[in-house]
Amino acid sequence: MITHPAFSVEPWAITEEGVHLEVLAQSESVFALSNGHIGLRGNLDEGEPSGLPGTYLNAFYETRPLPYAEAGYGYPEDGQTVVNVTNGKLIRLLVDDEPLDIRYGEVLHHTRTLDLRTGLLTRQVCWRSPSGREVEVRSIRLVSFVQRSVAAIRYEVRGHDGAPLRVVAQSALTANEPGPPRSADPRAAEVLAAPLMAEEQELHHARAVLVHRTRQSGLRMAAGMDHLIDGPDRTVTVSDIAPDLARVLVSCELPPDGSLTLTKYLAYGWSSRRSLPSVRDQVDAALASANRAGWDQLVSRQHEYLDDFWERADVEIDGDGELQQAVRFGLFHTLQAGARAEQRAIPAKGLTGPGYDGHVFWDTESFVLPVLTYTAPHAAADALRWRHSTLRLACERGKQLGLEGSAFPWRTIRGQECSAYWPAGTAAFHINADIADAVLRYLRATGDEEFGRGAGLELLVETARLWRSLGHHDAAGVFHIDGVTGPDEYSALVDDNVYTNLMAERNLRNAAELASRHAAEAAALGVDDEEIAAWRDAAAAMHVPYDERLGVHPQDADFLNHAVPDFSTFEYPLLLHMPYFQLYQQQVVKQPDLVMALMSRGDRFTADQKARDFAYYEAITVRDSSLSACVQAVVAAEVGHLELAYDYFGEAALMDLADLEHNTRDGLHMASLAGAWIAAVVGFGGARDSRRGMMFRPRLPAALARLCFRFMWRGRRLRVEVRHPQVTYELLEGEPVDIFHGDERVRLAEGAPQTRHWTPPVPGPEPVQPPGRAPARRRQR
Amino acid sequence: MITHPAFSVEPWAITEEGVHLEVLAQSESVFALSNGHIGLRGNLDEGEPSGLPGTYLNAFYETRPLPYAEAGYGYPEDGQTVVNVTNGKLIRLLVDDEPLDIRYGEVLHHTRTLDLRTGLLTRQVCWRSPSGREVEVRSIRLVSFVQRSVAAIRYEVRGHDGAPLRVVAQSALTANEPGPPRSADPRAAEVLAAPLMAEEQELHHARAVLVHRTRQSGLRMAAGMDHLIDGPDRTVTVSDIAPDLARVLVSCELPPDGSLTLTKYLAYGWSSRRSLPSVRDQVDAALASANRAGWDQLVSRQHEYLDDFWERADVEIDGDGELQQAVRFGLFHTLQAGARAEQRAIPAKGLTGPGYDGHVFWDTESFVLPVLTYTAPHAAADALRWRHSTLRLACERGKQLGLEGSAFPWRTIRGQECSAYWPAGTAAFHINADIADAVLRYLRATGDEEFGRGAGLELLVETARLWRSLGHHDAAGVFHIDGVTGPDEYSALVDDNVYTNLMAERNLRNAAELASRHAAEAAALGVDDEEIAAWRDAAAAMHVPYDERLGVHPQDADFLNHAVPDFSTFEYPLLLHMPYFQLYQQQVVKQPDLVMALMSRGDRFTADQKARDFAYYEAITVRDSSLSACVQAVVAAEVGHLELAYDYFGEAALMDLADLEHNTRDGLHMASLAGAWIAAVVGFGGARDSRRGMMFRPRLPAALARLCFRFMWRGRRLRVEVRHPQVTYELLEGEPVDIFHGDERVRLAEGAPQTRHWTPPVPGPEPVQPPGRAPARRRQR
Repeated sequence: MITHPAFSVEPWAITEEGVHLEVLAQSESVFALSNGHIGLRGNLDEGEPSGLPGTYLNAFYETRPLPYAEAGYGYPEDGQTVVNVTNGKLIRLLVDDEPLDIRYGEVLHHTRTLDLRTGLLTRQVCWRSPSGREVEVRSIRLVSFVQRSVAAIRYEVRGHDGAPLRVVAQSALTANEPGPPRSADPRAAEVLAAPLMAEEQELHHARAVLVHRTRQSGLRMAAGMDHLIDGPDRTVTVSDIAPDLARVLVSCELPPDGSLTLTKYLAYGWSSRRSLPSVRDQVDAALASANRAGWDQLVSRQHEYLDDFWERADVEIDGDGELQQAVRFGLFHTLQAGARAEQRAIPAKGLTGPGYDGHVFWDTESFVLPVLTYTAPHAAADALRWRHSTLRLACERGKQLGLEGSAFPWRTIRGQECSAYWPAGTAAFHINADIADAVLRYLRATGDEEFGRGAGLELLVETARLWRSLGHHDAAGVFHIDGVTGPDEYSALVDDNVYTNLMAERNLRNAAELASRHAAEAAALGVDDEEIAAWRDAAAAMHVPYDERLGVHPQDADFLNHAVPDFSTFEYPLLLHMPYFQLYQQQVVKQPDLVMALMSRGDRFTADQKARDFAYYEAITVRDSSLSACVQAVVAAEVGHLELAYDYFGEAALMDLADLEHNTRDGLHMASLAGAWIAAVVGFGGARDSRRGMMFRPRLPAALARLCFRFMWRGRRLRVEVRHPQVTYELLEGEPVDIFHGDERVRLAEGAPQTRHWTPPVPGPEPVQPPGRAPARRRQR
Repeated sequence: MITHPAFSVEPWAITEEGVHLEVLAQSESVFALSNGHIGLRGNLDEGEPSGLPGTYLNAFYETRPLPYAEAGYGYPEDGQTVVNVTNGKLIRLLVDDEPLDIRYGEVLHHTRTLDLRTGLLTRQVCWRSPSGREVEVRSIRLVSFVQRSVAAIRYEVRGHDGAPLRVVAQSALTANEPGPPRSADPRAAEVLAAPLMAEEQELHHARAVLVHRTRQSGLRMAAGMDHLIDGPDRTVTVSDIAPDLARVLVSCELPPDGSLTLTKYLAYGWSSRRSLPSVRDQVDAALASANRAGWDQLVSRQHEYLDDFWERADVEIDGDGELQQAVRFGLFHTLQAGARAEQRAIPAKGLTGPGYDGHVFWDTESFVLPVLTYTAPHAAADALRWRHSTLRLACERGKQLGLEGSAFPWRTIRGQECSAYWPAGTAAFHINADIADAVLRYLRATGDEEFGRGAGLELLVETARLWRSLGHHDAAGVFHIDGVTGPDEYSALVDDNVYTNLMAERNLRNAAELASRHAAEAAALGVDDEEIAAWRDAAAAMHVPYDERLGVHPQDADFLNHAVPDFSTFEYPLLLHMPYFQLYQQQVVKQPDLVMALMSRGDRFTADQKARDFAYYEAITVRDSSLSACVQAVVAAEVGHLELAYDYFGEAALMDLADLEHNTRDGLHMASLAGAWIAAVVGFGGARDSRRGMMFRPRLPAALARLCFRFMWRGRRLRVEVRHPQVTYELLEGEPVDIFHGDERVRLAEGAPQTRHWTPPVPGPEPVQPPGRAPARRRQR
């Protein structure tokens, strides 16, 4: 397994010792700080060297043309790409006139630590300049969960060689930073090379604000910085400003035991509609508010916020320190991606990098929201309200595609379809059911009636309308959905994709139920009894193909008729070595699709079917997608292959810490990080929500002595502790509630934990994967 | 029906009376002259006004980048686009210092005539200038079938108002003519705006040569002109030259009964490899040769060439003058496209316009070659030799796609795949079987053993290898070909497309047979008995799905499970109003696919199956393609719907004369023009080739009193004359031969025509088309 040469294994932090320029871009993603609103990549304070400089504002994007050599009806004309905005992280240091740069001179000590409990990124550097002067720098960075427009940096410099030292700290805001080209299309690269047009600059002593606007998308942003400076006597501060650069220069002579401390407050504001003064003043106000709170309070509130989160969300693992660390790392970043997104999207990379153009996919609803729903339900609600805010666009897109209801985009920032690959952009309709499913999950987990009557109902209604108009009854009255692309991206445009059909079935059925429950609100959306009946009928008649001969479910109607390829000749990832037509005509699976159905619609499969289906698909799933391992972990655990599940858990959890797909440089894989929680809680915890309530069928691989997780359920805080061979359920806070241990109803009340035995499931023969595609083994066996 | 306001109905010519600027571009295509090597659009002599200026050299193209917003493995990076080369047609006229321009002054008379027997395009203009002077111009243009590098123009000017008249004729060669933008992609438009870089200019009195080279593709071309001038006394000729312009100016004062006559010889040469002097000298030599022959001989040889063609190829129709004209017009242009292409491609638009970027598609082998094979067999052989010359590229493409054998391009000029739409460019494999089929047809029709041992064998072998590696056997031993795109472009990526499977079956079977017959030559291609056996096995096991419930063949394995749409809501052409996924998931057919199989593989269907299949597909075929009507005509005739066949015959034949698809401006639809012959000969003549020989089952609609066609068969010239209710077969020239009248063997010898009765087939109920998509009726019924 590829591992970062220096992340040490510890339960509550990620620490890098030394300088590792070869993985600099990866570490910038790993050390990214975000609150879902603002994101700062873990770039070095002094800006250089850098892998990918990055500062992101949620939903702040530039529009670029999507080129087509052969265009077609319904192809989107414009793409949206996240913009690297004005960088406020920058603090350069001159040491006796020599710039601190870890590529030159000598690095005596270099540590970076991301603390998962305090939310602080700390860096300590001892550096000897080429001319022999030694300096010690300690910087601490935070992006506030509490004040969502604010980030802050504390930057301390000390001499290290016992002699007075002249230093100049240059703290900057800089726009249109150069970086590697963002697109192979020269027109798009040009648009993205310097995306910000300067509109206004404001400078008052150590406070500066730069206002910019994007050329094409016309979005306006302001970035501000203010400084508190604590230095020796005769410390001099000067500042200057230009359209793309504001600088505060602090120069002093440090006595041997003296230090210079800069506290830098950063604030960002942006809008598609508000005026320049309004956006600028918002940033000034945020700076004032940060100043008033002060560094210490920002730090302590950050800690409190995270304490509260871990009380609801922590997952403890005994027996595998690496996974303990990784699962908390994943939870931390999942929180960072969604905590304060507040009606903006949660992109596939969060705000940690420019990967996938900063787009949001179904990853949000199907991988990230399952975690947030049970650990930060307000963030799950916000993400769904964001989807709801794009419903009008989705219905317009549906209309363009000749369909009723909503056709949510396969990939987008603002809500418009941005996929230039039409088998995804006009056929991966399952995203609509995934959104509906996230609504249902949220409603079950929270009982949020207001959401259920409002945005939730509307989302279910419009997605149900989509399915009703997309599918059709055959002569025998069976309902089919033809020509769609399911989760597996090595298939496309198939008929009766089992995952899509089963998710659509649930969507239709629950839309009917919710609309009946909130009849007045549904009527206001134009829903009448006939329409509800049509949804119920389509759901009841939904086709779920099954192959009697092989005794397994086909991924879609024709899947099992295709050739099983000779995997021994394959090079991975296949999509870089094989044309689509060839991928599509073979029984080769990029990421779980039917197995995703086994997880998401487990109620529709018998245990025996699950075991056979899993074994069949395991042999043809090549896992060229980071959306794979956690799903395979869950189903492997359910059918009793606990060691295999453990391996997949490891893969999901270590996706970014070990850079398994070699692209962590472009940002973290939020779905896989969230997937680590899914593997632990849904996989080994056996947690399932259902109409009756939360149900658990825990099971642990031998290597793990203990798994303990917390979660929120209808306002209660609960804790489940799994050991060999028993499980203890505890209500930590809230009114008594029933949960299910397997089929047994268990009543939980505060202070009265309930312990039950669990029996490991009896597995079938060990499944095989395509040659070379088995997950890395966590234990010899 | 939309008809040109002025093409009169006559048997051997197309005549336009008057000026019709609104259809100028269409008429430029209709009046295009070509010999398959050089093509001149029917632009007015004076260059302006013009619809689309166009001069084309076969296979002279520019390369341009193909942009992708989301690229994929195997997508071609470069496209090829036919270039509008140096224009030599241009002869401007100044009448008392006023330029002749039919938009100004007054047009007293304007006629253009394309004579199908002489091959000359004649124009007569009488024009009164804004200042009141009258002039008469008569121009005659030809592109020589005999001297393939040569075109010629005779241009005569006379005064018309009885007074002396000062005139200046400016004859030019002009490169990089401005025209409408050629691409929506700004980069491609830029490449194509001025594609020619000047390399050399040569001027000797009235002879000039311009040498140019394309920027990206690096092709070199030379265009030359020379003049014979016959004018009154004191006629003065001067000439000048510049990188993109050579001019010969002839000025004189015409006496009242005098005239000025310019004879302009044009020559073109081009090459991807030859040196500048070589290409330039080739053009000088061609000019010298044209000069030596002189105008009269060029004209008389052109007539002889065409007389010879019509002796072999003419189709006579009694009872419908419009179709008589149209079918000859189609034959003439089919000949023009292929006559002297000589190892260059026959593009879908011939050399009549820039439509489809000048690309060649399966149109050549499946629509154009069936005509040329029986009317100009040398041209058919040349076209197949061109395909053979690209075999190496096709095998490289196959390798790139992970396949054995050849993967011929869906669209190309030079042989490289240029389709940017991968469901066509990497999945429309049927083109390989179409090429193989054209080889077989040619071999049967000519008995050309040398071709069969050489290029023909190699084409069959490599295409058979493709099918063997593309398809697979299932557990029951049945051979399937999955994930391909058949002829119907409203379906894609389907399993077991019946047309593809049956054509592949024939390809495999005949490759095996030919390789066995020419064992030594096959062995040299690496073919051994095992490989031949594998082809035979795959052919024997080829799956042909059939739906017992409906009693029809599905277009592909799943086609009949798809929804039948509500056609009443559709807008046409559908591809401009509906996304692909939606087209693909419905039972809607753009162009015959299963019905194409009924025509091409009629041996595999019973009469009853044909009738039922045709009726079923007729109801869902929207005919958004010009490749439709002739196929529907053939099968409609076969199953006895003679009036419907007659309507489709009309649509195929009038595609361009009536501009039925509103895009004749971009060039003629060669497949549809050839399709008129197919409708007549294969449809009403009932002509089929088979292992036994040529077979005929003639049938005529009531409106047509007589259909008489000629064709070549194994070196013989034959004639079939169909009347009600008998048919006469006659051997015009050659050794005695057997043909089949239905199942009856008929021996034909010169001077001994054989007459037989035919019985009209008994049709089933009248088929219905989707609402509004029935063909225009040629007769009330």
